[in-house]
Amino acid sequence: MIAHVILDRIDVPIVLAPLAGGPTTPQLAAAVSSAGGLGFLAGGYLSAGALRDQIASARAMTAGPLGVNLFVPGLPTASGSVDEYAARLSAAAALAGAEIGQPRFDDDAWDAKLALVLEDPVSVTSFTFGCPDSSVIDAVRSAGSEAWVTVTTPAEAAQAASVGADVLITQGMEAGGHRGGFTDDPAVDAFAGFGLLSLLQLVAAQTELPLVAAGGITTGAGVASALAAGARAAQLGTAFLRSPEAGTTQVQRDAVARPGATAMTRAFTGRLARGIRNQFLDEHSQAAPAAYPEVHYLTAPLRAAARSAGNPELVNLWAGQTHELTSELPAGELVARLASEARAALAAASARMS
Amino acid sequence: MIAHVILDRIDVPIVLAPLAGGPTTPQLAAAVSSAGGLGFLAGGYLSAGALRDQIASARAMTAGPLGVNLFVPGLPTASGSVDEYAARLSAAAALAGAEIGQPRFDDDAWDAKLALVLEDPVSVTSFTFGCPDSSVIDAVRSAGSEAWVTVTTPAEAAQAASVGADVLITQGMEAGGHRGGFTDDPAVDAFAGFGLLSLLQLVAAQTELPLVAAGGITTGAGVASALAAGARAAQLGTAFLRSPEAGTTQVQRDAVARPGATAMTRAFTGRLARGIRNQFLDEHSQAAPAAYPEVHYLTAPLRAAARSAGNPELVNLWAGQTHELTSELPAGELVARLASEARAALAAASARMS
Repeated sequence: MIAHVILDRIDVPIVLAPLAGGPTTPQLAAAVSSAGGLGFLAGGYLSAGALRDQIASARAMTAGPLGVNLFVPGLPTASGSVDEYAARLSAAAALAGAEIGQPRFDDDAWDAKLALVLEDPVSVTSFTFGCPDSSVIDAVRSAGSEAWVTVTTPAEAAQAASVGADVLITQGMEAGGHRGGFTDDPAVDAFAGFGLLSLLQLVAAQTELPLVAAGGITTGAGVASALAAGARAAQLGTAFLRSPEAGTTQVQRDAVARPGATAMTRAFTGRLARGIRNQFLDEHSQAAPAAYPEVHYLTAPLRAAARSAGNPELVNLWAGQTHELTSELPAGELVARLASEARAALAAASARMS
Repeated sequence: MIAHVILDRIDVPIVLAPLAGGPTTPQLAAAVSSAGGLGFLAGGYLSAGALRDQIASARAMTAGPLGVNLFVPGLPTASGSVDEYAARLSAAAALAGAEIGQPRFDDDAWDAKLALVLEDPVSVTSFTFGCPDSSVIDAVRSAGSEAWVTVTTPAEAAQAASVGADVLITQGMEAGGHRGGFTDDPAVDAFAGFGLLSLLQLVAAQTELPLVAAGGITTGAGVASALAAGARAAQLGTAFLRSPEAGTTQVQRDAVARPGATAMTRAFTGRLARGIRNQFLDEHSQAAPAAYPEVHYLTAPLRAAARSAGNPELVNLWAGQTHELTSELPAGELVARLASEARAALAAASARMS
């Protein structure tokens, strides 16, 4: 058994959030790890073969530790549950010069990707969209990897602890992209959504497990704040979207750089996620059903067409609440700057308390 | 002109949030100030005479500085705008053994209370529910009080800075009770709601004004986190609800002590506020119009009856997201414990970064 060695081993308590769907590259993960942080690869949407290639590629670029994130599969929604929404999107698809995609369920190649990380483990295997069975956690640990689980509520934290998670990634509602919690129930939209600082206080009160804080952190002061709240490290995603090593599309880079309100939406994928407001989000959020990944496949062709055309109004512009504070620094330089700023922020705060 | 002397002068960077409607008492405010923090009186809902008495009473109990919070008045809603909602509430009123109240608009005795604080100023005058005109800010400063303004978005922060606010109270969506921002527009419910840590990073990037962080802070680690994010002090309200000096009703004390989900609602007052979920909140939030203080007066009799009867299902149980972490400590002891825990949290975080 291994015991949380990675968080003790990294020089800088900064973890790259897995940015599935393009932004994460082996170059980005390797740069963060080489700078003393913990780089992550995003297994979501990739085939097992593509993920294997990315792991090999990142390993060739850094001697540092690496993490891989996997999507825990959910269940298909009832047949016909997205028909109404599909009909509604025809105008948007025409605008993008694309067809509506075929809605379908899949499990994101869960078995194959899990087998891959068990066969040739990286330092950390993290999970999003669900709590793995304890058998999965045990297998990951037996293979020599730490098992980290993403949680968004104190109840999810308790469940993750009960199955033996090594580390809890506590994700606040400020985070960009998909909410990483175990369920996606529209009935609790008004009741869910812990802010990061509240979530950290609540979870720290109920478990001794190390916490990694995620959600809206893009500055060194933000990193310092997460550590002061008791997190062992901060996980940043949006902060790296504009790094040259990231695979972020130009249309998203431009949107992230500008001030602009974000909102939670199921319009693009059928699962609640935070993105920068645009025409598609504003027009379809109210109507979008909770049906992931069916809606993801439904909108994929129109999003692809809009991305190619450089049209930001029809693309999912995933970003956390502080996206306008990001920079274009190379990832390694950004890690160093964030660490330096975090040290200064903690020194200033300590001076204020004495 | 005075320049932010209060935040430099207090021994402990902990500010009592004004808890209008009962919980705030002169005893509570004085205890926080005597412990080295900054106690606040809640002008909202009080007559000018009652506020004068509370100020006198608090002054008699502490030599420390005091703050007074005032509600900036809004505009009446259109005639008839709450009729449908009033009809809907008849069953709830009957259940409480009360009548529905008469909806009406008032300006919370704005002129009289402003005149009071100008005539005999306390150290800090803070504003909620709107951005005062620069003439008001100037008058407050000329009278010898600092003018603090509550903001919930970067845009509100810019506006408050432009009218000459001395300090910005940056309130995250985690906060209990009413949102303190300038507007209350249901159309942006899905888009508003900055988490505290994100809001602090965004506002700190645009202004040099001192920031006081509010929203979901109930632990010393939470205070430390706010300071590390760049705030000059943390403002805590829910944390003091169970203190013996507070005027909190028993039904609310009991609810705050138990774990329980909170949600944003207009059901009780017509203005967005965070409270612990109960029957009334769950049944009426979707239907409640944005009409403050009309809805406040509409529901007042049934809330009063339910409070007297000790029925938590029909009462506004205002609380922040971390309410279950509160204690029953006397306020002065709580300030001391929070400060000690905050120092320890910052030392631990600094050690982690070195």
